[in-house]
Amino acid sequence: MKATVYVTIKENVLDPQGAAVQGALHSLGFKEVGKVRIGKYMELTLDTNDRSEAEARVKAMCEKLLANTVVEDYRFELEG
Amino acid sequence: MKATVYVTIKENVLDPQGAAVQGALHSLGFKEVGKVRIGKYMELTLDTNDRSEAEARVKAMCEKLLANTVVEDYRFELEG
Repeated sequence: MKATVYVTIKENVLDPQGAAVQGALHSLGFKEVGKVRIGKYMELTLDTNDRSEAEARVKAMCEKLLANTVVEDYRFELEG
Repeated sequence: MKATVYVTIKENVLDPQGAAVQGALHSLGFKEVGKVRIGKYMELTLDTNDRSEAEARVKAMCEKLLANTVVEDYRFELEG
């Protein structure tokens, strides 16, 4: 089974990396770029076929390690 | 218009960050985790309503700044 995890910075939290990328894009002439928010994208392969178990386990992984839930949101998709 | 960009490390390129996360997940007891690949997830707001223009511009942003196309792949979605 494959899990795809998206970790994004919460809406009201400052994203300095996004601000830096926005500045760089403007410098390169991409003036139409407004807000830029940067997050993480993770692909995990899981040695299980039980979808509901996988869902609980990936949620636990996100809470414990993959996301800092104070300042980040996460969501994930399972396939296979 | 909103663009969502996914930047991932190419299949045959080593991903040390993914290997570190895999090791950490195993240490935490998530032994079912196989391969972990980590990429970037970016949300950009664009001040344009022309979809085909936006597509060309975001492609150029990816090629010039957002992805290192030697070792990374990118894909993006447009909405709005």
